[in-house]
Amino acid sequence: MPDQADPRPWEHLEHFAQSGDASGLQRYLSSLSSGEAARAVSRLDAQQQSRILTLLDPEQAAALIEECPQAEARELIEQLPPQEAAAILAEMPSDEQADLITALDPQDAEAILQEMGVDDAADARKLASYQSDEAGGLMVTEYLAFPETLPAGEVFEELRRNAEKYADYDVQYVYCTSPFGDLVGVLRLRDLLLTPQHKPICDLMIRKPVAASAHATIDELAELFERSGFFGVPVVDNGGKLVGVVKRRDVEAARAERAESDFLKSQGIVGGDELRTMPLRSRIRRRLTWLSGNIVLNMLAAAVIAIYQDTLAQVIALAVFLPIISDMSGNAGIQAIAVSLREMTLGLLKPTEFAWVFVKEVSLGAVNGIVLGVLVAIVAVIWQGNPYLGLVVGVALALNTVLAAIIGGTLPLLLTRMKMDPALASGPILTTITDMCGFFFVLSFATAVLPMLK
Amino acid sequence: MPDQADPRPWEHLEHFAQSGDASGLQRYLSSLSSGEAARAVSRLDAQQQSRILTLLDPEQAAALIEECPQAEARELIEQLPPQEAAAILAEMPSDEQADLITALDPQDAEAILQEMGVDDAADARKLASYQSDEAGGLMVTEYLAFPETLPAGEVFEELRRNAEKYADYDVQYVYCTSPFGDLVGVLRLRDLLLTPQHKPICDLMIRKPVAASAHATIDELAELFERSGFFGVPVVDNGGKLVGVVKRRDVEAARAERAESDFLKSQGIVGGDELRTMPLRSRIRRRLTWLSGNIVLNMLAAAVIAIYQDTLAQVIALAVFLPIISDMSGNAGIQAIAVSLREMTLGLLKPTEFAWVFVKEVSLGAVNGIVLGVLVAIVAVIWQGNPYLGLVVGVALALNTVLAAIIGGTLPLLLTRMKMDPALASGPILTTITDMCGFFFVLSFATAVLPMLK
Repeated sequence: MPDQADPRPWEHLEHFAQSGDASGLQRYLSSLSSGEAARAVSRLDAQQQSRILTLLDPEQAAALIEECPQAEARELIEQLPPQEAAAILAEMPSDEQADLITALDPQDAEAILQEMGVDDAADARKLASYQSDEAGGLMVTEYLAFPETLPAGEVFEELRRNAEKYADYDVQYVYCTSPFGDLVGVLRLRDLLLTPQHKPICDLMIRKPVAASAHATIDELAELFERSGFFGVPVVDNGGKLVGVVKRRDVEAARAERAESDFLKSQGIVGGDELRTMPLRSRIRRRLTWLSGNIVLNMLAAAVIAIYQDTLAQVIALAVFLPIISDMSGNAGIQAIAVSLREMTLGLLKPTEFAWVFVKEVSLGAVNGIVLGVLVAIVAVIWQGNPYLGLVVGVALALNTVLAAIIGGTLPLLLTRMKMDPALASGPILTTITDMCGFFFVLSFATAVLPMLK
Repeated sequence: MPDQADPRPWEHLEHFAQSGDASGLQRYLSSLSSGEAARAVSRLDAQQQSRILTLLDPEQAAALIEECPQAEARELIEQLPPQEAAAILAEMPSDEQADLITALDPQDAEAILQEMGVDDAADARKLASYQSDEAGGLMVTEYLAFPETLPAGEVFEELRRNAEKYADYDVQYVYCTSPFGDLVGVLRLRDLLLTPQHKPICDLMIRKPVAASAHATIDELAELFERSGFFGVPVVDNGGKLVGVVKRRDVEAARAERAESDFLKSQGIVGGDELRTMPLRSRIRRRLTWLSGNIVLNMLAAAVIAIYQDTLAQVIALAVFLPIISDMSGNAGIQAIAVSLREMTLGLLKPTEFAWVFVKEVSLGAVNGIVLGVLVAIVAVIWQGNPYLGLVVGVALALNTVLAAIIGGTLPLLLTRMKMDPALASGPILTTITDMCGFFFVLSFATAVLPMLK
């Protein structure tokens, strides 16, 4: 087997899937980086994928699946027999387990839950009942909690005795609970390290610790971590009972995922992440949904041109400028959308601040509009030798650029307030409006000065 | 002062800037969340911002500036007298200090470095000499390193003695060095916790620890953290000397920042993050650079229409469909760009895999092209009652959609291989090509069947 980077590592996997050489497969996979392994698996067909996962022991299979993007992880699990799938899920951290169960087809999820132990299944159902973008859906249930009355020495002993088990827990803090399971304090490992052994942990713990509600949103959690600097924060239910721990890095990963999903939506991919390894049918659905909606909006806008057909027929040169004006003001508006989305993500802009955005966009839109308008006017005059044509297309583009900047800047705020998804809807709505207005400006101005244009 | 969320917190800051009430200001700022505080400061003018920062003590000012997006943090620092700025920078973690110094105007940076202590300035210069997207630029120099021969008990003692100082260090690991400063091992705090005090740490440490080169890229670091599960990794120079520690969360933050910057570039914002609180001039530059380049490309594409003016003059209905075809195939191509960028980020797609992307996009493009082509053809036939017009625009859109999917899918790979920025350049290049081809298809087909269209 060649040791250097292999451009087609999936061919080796195909070979192992066929030969059933489990130990060879394990050795080969461990020679790949985790990203490479995920990529190689993604290129196999469904049957080969299932064989590879079945050849591995559940822990290795879980590690491999965790490296895959969720959309793919879900397909890998769905292809497996429920019993195998349950064994693999059991090896995952509770949050990833819950994410996957939520993402699965409900029937498949039920079949897998049936195969899990009663307690594990109940835990998994509990976690899967939270939204994936709230603390309950991001938390893990692998954490250390001890009654607050326990002496530090016993906590020590317990940690030492179960060092191996806890090694998987990424432990930074120990949580202290009341007899009713309520969270009452947090103990840092470093404090435990520097302390007399006989003291009960309630004497060492930080009381009234920072905790998140199970329904806290990603942004609330991010704010909490930012303010506190902690690596993990306990999660409590409505009654104050400790139910899990949410880690900083899981919150950061969830934010990054949301940003990626917003990016894809803004570029017209809807219904979740598209990967080219997915079946053609679901890839088509992800793109065509948006395109077919958009073509209707496009035709609506183009109807404005149809209304002014007579003018156009008399000054055919205008037809050259219509796509330019449509494109350019669309672009100017999309820039403003991007800045608003970005500022809202950073928390620098509230969805109520229309007036402020309006003022900021009017001035910028005016300058950019004038520059672009003059540019297009010069080209029109040079090309057709008619200053009126230059005036018509120049003024139309300038006006439409200002309009696009204003709409692009404020539309994401408006959509957010209307509880619509600004990443998805802003672009199509903007370009429909700017197309209609742009065509209207050019063609109505041209109609007004028609004798000068002929 | 009202306790509930204040829609205009900067008005309070203006008041404090005027009155000079430092303790009132501190109290008010601590009542705001960090995001709110950053937002409030961003809305002040330069003079007020400087006064607020001067009223705070350097540690508080540093904390406030760290909450701001980098583009803003940079302006805040530049507005201050160098001595004040140096005092504030001294309170920041070494990586953020270095990032800011790199981002500053070189003259301002020099003036500030002159005001820092000789050693601090030398450290800062050293860090600032690394690229901000390599390990050297992301690492901090606040870490714990001890000679490998030291007994565990003494390391303990040292930790206890300087507990306060190290509290800021986010310590999870202790690094063990040879007499020459070379990294030889890593000691986990939890292992130190469970160990006899007299043993030298070289008996407890993990030998040949995972370490990153100072020139490791963000992706290499991310891969390292993914594989290892560590919170921090030591950074060594070319000679193996320990020079810093790069933390998982700083790498994650850097990745998120890069994704945001790619998003902005793909939407036509160039030259760095735009915030509406920036001066108008720099906001205009960020948007106009891209727009003015794009309008030239647009005109190039529209020139195809000009060539076919005679056809257009005879079948004016075609003018209605030109912007639709331009928009729709542009959109179809942008979807494919988004998927390629996403797959490359995830490591699921290599820049060499043209053929694979080509195959995947041809099939999808064909289906979407046929659906959209049929849709537009039906509209054309109903509206004009001419099946040939439907055929011309339908076939043109279908063909152009396939073309757009192929170009959109492969262009980011090609640009990456040519060391160009795919997030920035893919969109404009794609739409120019799809516009030209789209106009050409419609108008040349129409010319071919001109007698049927009249």
